[in-house]
Amino acid sequence: MLRSAALLAIGDELLSGLRHDTNCSWLAARLHDAGVPVRGIQVLPDQEEPILEALGRWVGKVDLLVLSGGLGPTHDDRTRGVLARYLGTSLKADNEAYDRIVSRYHGPFRDRVEASRGIQSLVPEGALSLHNPQGSALGVVFAVGGTRVLALPGVPWEFRAMASESVLPLIQRLASWKQVLVAGWPESLLAEKLKDTIGDPGLQVSILPSAGVVTLVFRGEDERVESAVSTVRQLLPEDCLEEGETDMAKALVNIAARKGLRIACAESCTGGLVGAAITDVAGSSAVFLGSAVCYSNAAKISLLGVDRGIIETRGAVSGECAAEMARGARQAYGSDLAVSVTGIAGPEGGSPEKPVGTVWFGVSGRKGDSAFLRNLSGDRSHIRRWATAVALETLWRNLKEG
Amino acid sequence: MLRSAALLAIGDELLSGLRHDTNCSWLAARLHDAGVPVRGIQVLPDQEEPILEALGRWVGKVDLLVLSGGLGPTHDDRTRGVLARYLGTSLKADNEAYDRIVSRYHGPFRDRVEASRGIQSLVPEGALSLHNPQGSALGVVFAVGGTRVLALPGVPWEFRAMASESVLPLIQRLASWKQVLVAGWPESLLAEKLKDTIGDPGLQVSILPSAGVVTLVFRGEDERVESAVSTVRQLLPEDCLEEGETDMAKALVNIAARKGLRIACAESCTGGLVGAAITDVAGSSAVFLGSAVCYSNAAKISLLGVDRGIIETRGAVSGECAAEMARGARQAYGSDLAVSVTGIAGPEGGSPEKPVGTVWFGVSGRKGDSAFLRNLSGDRSHIRRWATAVALETLWRNLKEG
Repeated sequence: MLRSAALLAIGDELLSGLRHDTNCSWLAARLHDAGVPVRGIQVLPDQEEPILEALGRWVGKVDLLVLSGGLGPTHDDRTRGVLARYLGTSLKADNEAYDRIVSRYHGPFRDRVEASRGIQSLVPEGALSLHNPQGSALGVVFAVGGTRVLALPGVPWEFRAMASESVLPLIQRLASWKQVLVAGWPESLLAEKLKDTIGDPGLQVSILPSAGVVTLVFRGEDERVESAVSTVRQLLPEDCLEEGETDMAKALVNIAARKGLRIACAESCTGGLVGAAITDVAGSSAVFLGSAVCYSNAAKISLLGVDRGIIETRGAVSGECAAEMARGARQAYGSDLAVSVTGIAGPEGGSPEKPVGTVWFGVSGRKGDSAFLRNLSGDRSHIRRWATAVALETLWRNLKEG
Repeated sequence: MLRSAALLAIGDELLSGLRHDTNCSWLAARLHDAGVPVRGIQVLPDQEEPILEALGRWVGKVDLLVLSGGLGPTHDDRTRGVLARYLGTSLKADNEAYDRIVSRYHGPFRDRVEASRGIQSLVPEGALSLHNPQGSALGVVFAVGGTRVLALPGVPWEFRAMASESVLPLIQRLASWKQVLVAGWPESLLAEKLKDTIGDPGLQVSILPSAGVVTLVFRGEDERVESAVSTVRQLLPEDCLEEGETDMAKALVNIAARKGLRIACAESCTGGLVGAAITDVAGSSAVFLGSAVCYSNAAKISLLGVDRGIIETRGAVSGECAAEMARGARQAYGSDLAVSVTGIAGPEGGSPEKPVGTVWFGVSGRKGDSAFLRNLSGDRSHIRRWATAVALETLWRNLKEG
């Protein structure tokens, strides 16, 4: 049974901001899901001393310590050596394990993997090697001071494959937490609305805002968690995603599939983000027909049939244009429902009447065509992300009603 | 002059994997860019002891310590209190600074911000407050043991706005590093090709692979860095992005703008990711006309004019279909060049002849229409990301030649 864990991400590129560690938060989510608290995540440079110091800090304090990175064949990969130094042993080749890796490759790739044997087959004496199903670096595992230490390669797909094989079987699923996703509420108003539930001293509550959706996480005794979740659902019957739905795109694909409704989009300022979010859901092809990304006015006219006069008199960023874009997408794709987005994401293109952040949304369905305006704030990427969230929520609400 | 920094991200949600810290890597990139090494990044829970321990570890060891998060109005926001405890002082209200924040709000929002005054106006005695131009939590700044400590709200846009105002002016730009982005090479083959340059003992070299592009970072004396960069450019004249181009989308928008060429796409399995990547570039509207996301076969036929017989006999995932999709996009949008993507991203939909990862790309330009196949590996999201990278690289290479 694992009761606690800590995670170390190793690599100068993670400290210089050139790369972003995703391995630790990925594994943290899985550990959390299984009820294993993560006590800390540390990003460390490719240097022996900080890594040794971190080993000293965590060994004996947590049941599981996972290191990501520093196992490759190049000069800046120091993890093997540091682990041997920490254990007070030397490195030895595990040729049998490395042969298994070499045997997966053919032709010139095989020669290349064979050439890295000198470094990549090495494992500290007293540790075991872990097979890598997706790459050529062996992992390392050992136990010391009551802590199981795993070192895995930092390449994300190798890390995930090896962690899935070696870490996830160690952990037991517990049911002591639940989350509810609420759409369309600013965090502060939601906290006010739910203050009695959130304030329950018997619960640990996290409120996690993101574009368009706030996630409420409740931890505590099973009964109390269940009761909090059902209170939230009763207070906000129109705004909660279904249990098990972890994002809005998945929620809207689910409901469209359940109702047999097919959807399409027309996008200007989001440039494909709405389609990309929907098609991120495996199986979305059953309900999603497509999205016409029409950045130019000419494309809005030729692909979506927007009236040229509307663009000339009202502009491409207008309710009239948004409604015509949605109708055009619904017709072009032959869908039951379509939404459109047209706005000014900036940094250029704003005016006193239509400042950066002005975004119109159109809806076309069996009940007719309509449009509404949102004034979004932030920089280009923030405005695009929020506009995408509003479009997804609009599809979701219309599918629920439709 | 800042010589070193460390960054702390505070929040249970960051350790549970429910959220991903982006503030620290964002700031790390800016510090790195300015020549200030980041010695460590730590993710800490919403608990007093681990935060106090981290303050103890870094104060006196680095010139700048930045804390992200824990300054909001809710029960789990502990940063103010911990800082006061660390300084051995108590909290006092900075009402003057808070008034400046309140004055930005109107109507019911103003009442709400006013109601949080009790907590959000508090600053430890001996520290100064920092104005927040985007939200309602004051920041905190003080100096202790030779370390300047800044505590900023964790909401990304607030963090970035305040860090830009308070941290960036502190740092000086240095020119001791350079990067070159190389397209179309697997990391291992590239390292082999460039082994003399990468092996230069006078240089610190990082090799950072990502989908479709490998980033080489050289640090060292100016002359040596310059010489390494020009060697790479000479050895790989067709494959290097221009200086200052930090991603492929920006590179292709630049070259299209320079040549006055307009581009369009047709996407199936990438679902909008190609359009989203291109329109992420500010100013892309000058060259990007749009992308027809056609997930359904009917849309490929009606929007892009793909021959129904091709889909029936060769399938939607075929070279013939890819070429027709590209031609259809070029015609529908009236662009000079178009690329298309059609493939099987999985997890369902594969067959022995066309396994998951089979992706066809089409190109249509002045020289005619063509198509090529890539067999990609990994899960759905990995295949979609790589397919997007290949499509962007294809546009880039064709724009360079065209």
